[in-house]
Amino acid sequence: MRLLDTTLRDGEQAPGVSLTPEEKAEIATALDRAGVSVVEAGSACTGDGERETIERVADLGLDARVTSFARGVRNDIDLALDCGVDGVNLVVPASDRHVEGKVGTSRDEVVETTADLVTHARDHGLWVEVIGEDGSRADLDFLERLAAAAHDAGADRFCFADTVGHTGPERAYEAVSRLTELGPTSTHTHDDLGLAVTNALASVAAGADLVHATVNGVGERAGNVALEEVAIALDHCYGVETVETTELYDLARVVADATDVALAPNKAVVGENAFAHESGIHTDGTLKDERMYEPYPPETVGRERRLVLGKHTGRAGAKAALAEHGVEVSDDELAEVVARVQRLAEQNKRVTDADLLAIADDVRGRERDRRIALLELTATSGGPRPTASVRLDVDGEEQVASGTGDGPVDAAVSAVREAVSGSRDSAAVAADAALESYHVDAITGGTDAVVTVEVEMSRGDRSVTVRASDGDITRASVTAMVDALDRLLVADGETDPATADD
Amino acid sequence: MRLLDTTLRDGEQAPGVSLTPEEKAEIATALDRAGVSVVEAGSACTGDGERETIERVADLGLDARVTSFARGVRNDIDLALDCGVDGVNLVVPASDRHVEGKVGTSRDEVVETTADLVTHARDHGLWVEVIGEDGSRADLDFLERLAAAAHDAGADRFCFADTVGHTGPERAYEAVSRLTELGPTSTHTHDDLGLAVTNALASVAAGADLVHATVNGVGERAGNVALEEVAIALDHCYGVETVETTELYDLARVVADATDVALAPNKAVVGENAFAHESGIHTDGTLKDERMYEPYPPETVGRERRLVLGKHTGRAGAKAALAEHGVEVSDDELAEVVARVQRLAEQNKRVTDADLLAIADDVRGRERDRRIALLELTATSGGPRPTASVRLDVDGEEQVASGTGDGPVDAAVSAVREAVSGSRDSAAVAADAALESYHVDAITGGTDAVVTVEVEMSRGDRSVTVRASDGDITRASVTAMVDALDRLLVADGETDPATADD
Repeated sequence: MRLLDTTLRDGEQAPGVSLTPEEKAEIATALDRAGVSVVEAGSACTGDGERETIERVADLGLDARVTSFARGVRNDIDLALDCGVDGVNLVVPASDRHVEGKVGTSRDEVVETTADLVTHARDHGLWVEVIGEDGSRADLDFLERLAAAAHDAGADRFCFADTVGHTGPERAYEAVSRLTELGPTSTHTHDDLGLAVTNALASVAAGADLVHATVNGVGERAGNVALEEVAIALDHCYGVETVETTELYDLARVVADATDVALAPNKAVVGENAFAHESGIHTDGTLKDERMYEPYPPETVGRERRLVLGKHTGRAGAKAALAEHGVEVSDDELAEVVARVQRLAEQNKRVTDADLLAIADDVRGRERDRRIALLELTATSGGPRPTASVRLDVDGEEQVASGTGDGPVDAAVSAVREAVSGSRDSAAVAADAALESYHVDAITGGTDAVVTVEVEMSRGDRSVTVRASDGDITRASVTAMVDALDRLLVADGETDPATADD
Repeated sequence: MRLLDTTLRDGEQAPGVSLTPEEKAEIATALDRAGVSVVEAGSACTGDGERETIERVADLGLDARVTSFARGVRNDIDLALDCGVDGVNLVVPASDRHVEGKVGTSRDEVVETTADLVTHARDHGLWVEVIGEDGSRADLDFLERLAAAAHDAGADRFCFADTVGHTGPERAYEAVSRLTELGPTSTHTHDDLGLAVTNALASVAAGADLVHATVNGVGERAGNVALEEVAIALDHCYGVETVETTELYDLARVVADATDVALAPNKAVVGENAFAHESGIHTDGTLKDERMYEPYPPETVGRERRLVLGKHTGRAGAKAALAEHGVEVSDDELAEVVARVQRLAEQNKRVTDADLLAIADDVRGRERDRRIALLELTATSGGPRPTASVRLDVDGEEQVASGTGDGPVDAAVSAVREAVSGSRDSAAVAADAALESYHVDAITGGTDAVVTVEVEMSRGDRSVTVRASDGDITRASVTAMVDALDRLLVADGETDPATADD
């Protein structure tokens, strides 16, 4: 059973979202790989650019049915036909607010027009779904009359549309139950009340066999039902298979990148923290039994579990994190490490690997063998060639170097790399240490706001994450990077204590 | 009826979240103002800092009952008592996975211990809620036995806990129905399957009279049910009043600031786009009838409606946006403006006021009377005193100035202000133009990523938003700011055409 209709059109109607033809083709291909049954590629009446995009998606040769949105006018259907789509999602008003207030017509006219348009589309070989807009606020008797007329004219499906995210599950269940009596029914839900998934499930329970969804729930206002949520809820609670769930996380990332709509860390299924455990009780339980605090394994949706450090970190979590860096501590030392991680988290909100290792060094009475330290930094920007110079202490020797880049941070990072590679010992590390990620939290407030930078650098199997904050973005970035390089260099020179003890 | 229990403890267990005592007190006060019935302030067993925070919240004199989380051991209850709370949320294992796998005990022992602990807590005057952890994966017969024992010992409530976000609404309904037969029942739901609201509503339908929630749904993994969603869904679909809904948006912002957990733009109720309309059809409909595309007015939750410009902007939306800036265009001009806004959006994803006004000027054949242009910018950062200089053309005269600041952007902004104030005409504008907001999108990728800066500047009633992108954050920031100042200056010199026509 493959019952998801993903509406690229609705997703793109989210404020501020616009997809290039390449992005839509990429998303459509990913959706097809995941096994959705319908891809609504756009709205052919919007303009030339949109029509080119729809044609492009229609030409991809997908297994999924490719459709265009069409308003209740013949020209929209003809424009869709010109794009070579397999079908149309024909939207006609269903509630009196839309029939009279928006379109300025009457119930009778809507029914008549709908029948004509369905016939026209079917005559041209199109698959036709009729969407009764604002159906959840419509008179149910009229909604039935409209659906019956659509089916009589040959429509493949009639869609119950909770256009404004107004309904509760009882009403959705009742409406879809009545509509299903008349023919195949689909459902279209929005999340204004946080009930998009609820209403999609209620619709399926009432007999709907096709659910409209968007990846990450991107869409008008609070968005449509999220494909990943409805797919996993149907799978987990009802054993109803829709798409390949293992594709869900990749899909989410493709769409987040293309739409620039960021995912909240606590977004269900695909948010950064959906499979992260911090609190002592939860981490401890998870280390004993992975299912202890998870409804299903993260691999189900193509992800991995994460243990993170913070205020609620307990002994088990800290021990596991230290072991990842090859550091073993005694029970007494562990208790002290946990206490200090918690204290740090109470001020700082997030504890990085570098923080944990610094605490462990200190608790074990080890002087931190710092191998790289930043002595001086100057960056010039604004002009055509941002330039920076740094003076570092590398293994007791001063190294001075300069670099240019796209901006002051980029220039300073080149300078640091250059300076580190000047030292014999560290050259190898500098050369193959990769900047895995560079992240600056969104800056709001004033231009004097403190900027927080997080860098992850890796070398071989080892990776280290460091955060730094400063009013000066250049200084914050370089401080974090120098610290990360230093951690990698120090690790490089050390015998792994876990191995040494054996 | 006030039936929301907000668990600050669970919210803070979200990975990376840590609240200071001041932040918790601020949130607790805001929750109390909104009218929640229980505030779970923290977990007294966590440490001294946590206990101080709980004491502080307990001392606020809230109308809400202030409680502490307690594990199933006597010492946790005693620690909570020392903090002066009104009650405890006592967590005991309910599923065999937790009874045997995590705690290493037996069902009989759990029942016996629970009864003892409830008696102990009640003897000390505490309100007691017993939470059967992982109750949704527990044997329902055992869950009933546990609830009965808790009630027999004097517990005020037994909580059905979907600890890992595993259940569907049918199971939640069945479990809560059975538990309600035994005594007052609360419900605790998580969003791993996107079903947190669904299960909370199913629980209420089955008789639960207290719902655990967190603001913005912040919590372990995918988080708890969001207070704002369950409150508005109960209000809108069932007429069940819980909190003052007009406080919901303020609450969301207080918590987003304190936790640093960003809200997705499409977050229900409180996300940036929850009441934003971009598409032509939707904006047009909304301008005719505000309820056309909204389930309830934004004022219900303390917000306002927003019309935004983008690829789907139609005539009605563009006309309304131009009118806000006092610009009137003919029908032909409007058609051209709409076409060009759409084209720009297809490349740029977001169209600002400045973009719209530039297009309108051009369409009307007006040369943009630019009064300020950036000729040169140099910023030096990294050292102890970030410094910048600018050369501007202000009304045909060159102005050079310098400034210092916390970082290169801050220094450059001072320099621009200084340079503009050097010109007689523009001095007044520079002096009272306020930087309303300065926002940099989160930067991910490499240090050479393009940085997008958005500034909003205002003077009197007029405000203008400008975005600029550049590999160099300093240049992007100054470009946007100079453009915004220029827009304000030009507006200052112009007669408002809407007024001039009258």
